[in-house]
Amino acid sequence: MTTTLLKRGALSALAIAATVLVGLAVAENTDKALLERARGLFKPLPDTAHVDDYPHSSERVELGKKLFFESRVSTDGRMSCAACHSPNYYGADSLALSVGVHGTLLPRNAPTVFNTPLLIAQHYGGNRVSVEEQAMKALLSPLAYGNKTYAEAEEKMRSLGYAPLFEKAFPNEKEPVSAENWATAIGAFERTLLTPAPFDRYLKGDQQAISKEAKIGLEKFMSYGCVGCHNGSVVGGQSYQKFGLTEDYWLATGSKEMALLKGRDKGKFHDTQKPEDTYIFKVPQLRNVAMTPPYFHDGSVAKLDDAVRVMARLQLGRTLSDDDVSHIVAFLNTLTGEVPAHFASVPSLPVAPYRN
Amino acid sequence: MTTTLLKRGALSALAIAATVLVGLAVAENTDKALLERARGLFKPLPDTAHVDDYPHSSERVELGKKLFFESRVSTDGRMSCAACHSPNYYGADSLALSVGVHGTLLPRNAPTVFNTPLLIAQHYGGNRVSVEEQAMKALLSPLAYGNKTYAEAEEKMRSLGYAPLFEKAFPNEKEPVSAENWATAIGAFERTLLTPAPFDRYLKGDQQAISKEAKIGLEKFMSYGCVGCHNGSVVGGQSYQKFGLTEDYWLATGSKEMALLKGRDKGKFHDTQKPEDTYIFKVPQLRNVAMTPPYFHDGSVAKLDDAVRVMARLQLGRTLSDDDVSHIVAFLNTLTGEVPAHFASVPSLPVAPYRN
Repeated sequence: MTTTLLKRGALSALAIAATVLVGLAVAENTDKALLERARGLFKPLPDTAHVDDYPHSSERVELGKKLFFESRVSTDGRMSCAACHSPNYYGADSLALSVGVHGTLLPRNAPTVFNTPLLIAQHYGGNRVSVEEQAMKALLSPLAYGNKTYAEAEEKMRSLGYAPLFEKAFPNEKEPVSAENWATAIGAFERTLLTPAPFDRYLKGDQQAISKEAKIGLEKFMSYGCVGCHNGSVVGGQSYQKFGLTEDYWLATGSKEMALLKGRDKGKFHDTQKPEDTYIFKVPQLRNVAMTPPYFHDGSVAKLDDAVRVMARLQLGRTLSDDDVSHIVAFLNTLTGEVPAHFASVPSLPVAPYRN
Repeated sequence: MTTTLLKRGALSALAIAATVLVGLAVAENTDKALLERARGLFKPLPDTAHVDDYPHSSERVELGKKLFFESRVSTDGRMSCAACHSPNYYGADSLALSVGVHGTLLPRNAPTVFNTPLLIAQHYGGNRVSVEEQAMKALLSPLAYGNKTYAEAEEKMRSLGYAPLFEKAFPNEKEPVSAENWATAIGAFERTLLTPAPFDRYLKGDQQAISKEAKIGLEKFMSYGCVGCHNGSVVGGQSYQKFGLTEDYWLATGSKEMALLKGRDKGKFHDTQKPEDTYIFKVPQLRNVAMTPPYFHDGSVAKLDDAVRVMARLQLGRTLSDDDVSHIVAFLNTLTGEVPAHFASVPSLPVAPYRN
């Protein structure tokens, strides 16, 4: 009888061990399958966002970094790229609505500058094809730098002492100090501001790079359909969508009417005036989303979990459970990279008097 | 005859060598005398500007650094200490007149924050006894942070997630998040922003630390009487003087009437309303003066050489020659230190939504 009991015990132990092993194997297979599925929809960040259209050099990046922080090209001496895209706030400004030249409250939220060269276009309506076009046109925007002409902005760059730096960055050009080169240099710098994150290590095969909760969140993010818009190397930013498919977005988000837009923000419509572009916005990237509240084009939602709920409801007609939200937020946290050290270390700018 | 010629040649060579040696000895004595004289009037920067009244710790300095860059405690979400005292512009903002909350043009120029704890007081009229008082009162200034009450500012600090950092920096306090502790922390950080320069190495005995021109300039700076006000470890900042002893300052500088001051800037008078304080200003420090144009309380003079001429004329009744100016500017250049690395490397701030 003792022998029988022992045998039974041994058999039970074997059974448990087998179950555990099978369980582990199943878990491993599940992990593998999830990674394979993710790899079909997402890509790790590339090493560089430089493109042939805008040749770069270390001199251009260095000049672009100075110009990015330079506020004296604006008409109040205070506006710069960094004013809305600050290293203090993960490349954004942490405000619901950004503030322009002469303290003007702008109609939209400033997105982070990190990884933006990888987006399909710039601005919420996509009316800037590249970071370079964005930088160049900002010089003349009455809400941004406020200059009347490019010549006015270029004259400021010269009087601030930038000519030698432009000459080094754009050698053999007859007139290196130009709005085009301002844009190219700032673009060259911005194209270095990529923020690889735990999710990239995961996509490259490191199963330990993200937590179990994050994996559940990733699975839900894909299964629920979020991934339909938020995919690729920056988890979004590659397409346009109507904000509010199931109901008007402002009912869900508490958005106010925007004085500067004379009413409700109609997205791409403001740029194109085409009725079919009403409430169409560029799908934002989700990299560093946990670090850049508040959310949406008008910063109308303060917290990430609320933003996730709103998106599921408005875009997918789905009411998420608390578990769903917490899993998806765990996944979104894996998209948080580091503030690039060369961005956090801000440059000294040319010494030059400025009379405002 | 050949012998005589050789002898004569040898004698001439000896004579020249002797002259050179005597010349060197004279130069060395002159150098020594100049250094001794300078040591009687100036002091090297101290290693620290911390004081017993405001005990510091690394946690306080770290918190103070974050608060220094934090703009969300202001009523437009944009104003911070760093807005006017930026690492991009040598601790100042490079503007003639600074810009306050909601884009308000301020009546005065922002001086550099570097070395300011060593000044006799803060503000051009000296109405703040310490950097701590300056930081605290700025919270309620309608031109700076614009809060109505300290409680309003403290509530913002809490909602931004600063409570744990205050608790670490001010352990065992019942209510560590307070305007007083905001001030103490920012002061603890500002007291680390000292900028030793070549002139300090010179004062410590290194004759090679500054050029021959700078030494001539130093001699003139002392002999002409500039040193009467601009002395000590920060080369000024220890006393008050009337700006414009020989003639009205605005005639020499092109100062405009200031809308916010309802007329001419009368210096300390605006704070005290005492007639004898009319046009009385704190003597500015001259450390980093070459890096922080434009000059004077209203930024009315763009260039350092012009500022030197104006000062000699208005305060000493002396018309400087071009050589005088160039020598004195060479001396002033020896007061330029480095932007402290821990200031140029700006912090990431707490992630928190802010609705403006």
